[in-house]
This record gives sequence, structure tokens and C-alpha cells, in this order.
Amino acid sequence: MKAIAEVQIIPIGAGVSVRKEVMRAHEVLEESGLNITLHANGSNLEGDLGEVMATVQRAIETLHAEGVVRLSSHIKIGTRTDKVPTMAGKLFK
Amino acid sequence: MKAIAEVQIIPIGAGVSVRKEVMRAHEVLEESGLNITLHANGSNLEGDLGEVMATVQRAIETLHAEGVVRLSSHIKIGTRTDKVPTMAGKLFK
Amino acid sequence: MKAIAEVQIIPIGAGVSVRKEVMRAHEVLEESGLNITLHANGSNLEGDLGEVMATVQRAIETLHAEGVVRLSSHIKIGTRTDKVPTMAGKLFK
Amino acid sequence: MKAIAEVQIIPIGAGVSVRKEVMRAHEVLEESGLNITLHANGSNLEGDLGEVMATVQRAIETLHAEGVVRLSSHIKIGTRTDKVPTMAGKLFK
Repeated sequence: MKAIAEVQIIPIGAGVSVRKEVMRAHEVLEESGLNITLHANGSNLEGDLGEVMATVQRAIETLHAEGVVRLSSHIKIGTRTDKVPTMAGKLFK
Repeated sequence: MKAIAEVQIIPIGAGVSVRKEVMRAHEVLEESGLNITLHANGSNLEGDLGEVMATVQRAIETLHAEGVVRLSSHIKIGTRTDKVPTMAGKLFK
Repeated sequence: MKAIAEVQIIPIGAGVSVRKEVMRAHEVLEESGLNITLHANGSNLEGDLGEVMATVQRAIETLHAEGVVRLSSHIKIGTRTDKVPTMAGKLFK
Repeated sequence: MKAIAEVQIIPIGAGVSVRKEVMRAHEVLEESGLNITLHANGSNLEGDLGEVMATVQRAIETLHAEGVVRLSSHIKIGTRTDKVPTMAGKLFK
């Protein structure tokens, strides 16, 4: 099942600037090979639901393994059975 | 105080396709004059915190006034006092 | 218009423990007089949509005024025109 | 790694009342054996990160398999490496 998702991973206690951690999370997401688009409030992902879940989990675990103590992760997942959704199809203008 | 925000307004019970309602919500957001960017999981907004809140409320009220019975709205708001954030500044690549 | 909402206000750069800031945010929410319930992932609010929006904004502004540099706030708002929703009515067990 | 999570699964196009689908999703979450608490804006989950992700995925897939055409799922995940978080520990009053 295909999913259109968004993930925003927020480091808590890593300082006011979190650019390094956000870049690293985005890098791990891109290593998945899924279609990923970065925007001002997260990264959008397009792919198989199971792969999206695994990719998000891997990003969280990678940041922790690399020393980030606390994370607050926010995920949106859109799924439907009547047609195969695409990120492009959701942008009407 | 400046805010970088995201809003996704989801019509419940308006049918499986919600493109019409999503377009209308985005239109109301744009009428605010705030800097707005549509993406696959919502609209990003950049502007004064109070104006962002009022704009989101107006979008919700407009959809209801035009007949949508039920909405689930999801909002993210980023604020900081050490510098003035911009959506462009959050896109590092 | 009545709303059932949730707000989670996350301090970024205030250290790994954010209990003090989370308690303060909840305190400001309660000062609103709205029906508020704290849970493990945020505070639920029940009240007029405009008051809910103003209360969330006041909580954000208060934390910043008291020294928190950066916040990431996550809000859910449920609204409907066919009946007056209540938090109690959403708990079926 | 332990996670404190929240999931809200919203059926789109299944009618204005979504109580049946929300109850079914909560039932599937509970079948996981994880510690689950229902509240007005979702269900809180406490358990191993991988199990939390698998449980959320199973709830989404079950609703679709049982006929719900479209879902919008909203997930929060809190993780930390300095101590084992509990939902009870996040309720300070």
C-alpha cells in the first residue's frame, strides 16, 4: 500500500539550532531511495507504507545512535485504496 | 512575533475526494497576504503569530460557513526569539 | 463555534528535561477557564474556537516572555456544525 | 528503544460520524498488548519503538482491509536515551 507521508524530527536539548540534526535526519530519509521532498516544516515522503514506517524509524534510531538524547517526531500518513496517491497529484497549482 | 507554521485542514464526511475543500482552504489562507506555500501534506505559512492564528481560524470558519460539516485541522507553529525565522532559511539544500 | 483541540508545546534548546516549561504552558492554558485535560502527549482543550486559538497563542507568548528561546507547537482542532462536540463524548469506553 | 507515542487515525469519506472506525482502530491498537490510553484527540501508546510503528501500521492496514477507503493518520513519537520514559511519568499532576 502506497503512502504519502510527512515527518518532522525535533531534537530536544541539542541546543537552539538544530540544523545539523535536521540535515542528518533528512540524509537518512534520502538513503531509503523513497521520493523525499524537504520543506519548511518537515520532509514529505512517498512510498510503500511499510518502507515509510521503517525509514522514519531508522532516522530516529540513527540520530539517537549518533548522540542525540531526546527526539519528538511528528508523522502524517495519507493512505487510500481507491487509487495510487502521488505527492505531485496533491499539488494542484 | 514571527512564526513559521503549517496547516492541514481535513474535511470529514465530505466524500473521499477533498480537493475542492482543500483548494478553498488554501485560497482563504492566500487571501491573508501572508507568505503561503502549498505542499503535499499541508500549507506552510510565514507571518506574525497572531495573523497566522487568525488566518487559520478564518479558513476553518469559511469552510464551515460554506457547508463543510466536520473538519480536523492540524497546525504546527515554530517560534523563536533569538532571530527572525524565514521559511527560506529552513531549506538548506 | 465549539472546538475540541490538543496542544503540545515543545521547548527546543531549553535542555533535555522540559518539565518546567511544559508545566508552565499547562498552567497558562488552565488560566483560560477552558476545560483542559493533560495527557502524555499534550493538553486537550474544549471551548469556543476563538478562545482556543487565543489561549494557545497566549501560552506560546508567555513561555517566550519568560525566557524560552525556541518553541515548536503542535495543535489539533476538531470542529463540526451538526452537533456540539464534547471531549467526554469522544471517550466511548 | 522505548517510545511514548500518540496516534489519531481519521477516516475520510466514511461519513461525518467516524466512531465505528475510531473504535475499531483502538481495538487493533489494544490487541498489540502495548500500554494504550484513549483520549479525546487520539490514543497514547507506550512500548518498544519498533512495536509501536508496527502496531500503527497494522491499525491502518486493518481499517483499509475492512473497507475504509481513505485515512489520514497523525502520529507523535517521543524517544530518549537518558532514561526510560513512561506515560505516567509525563503526568505531573
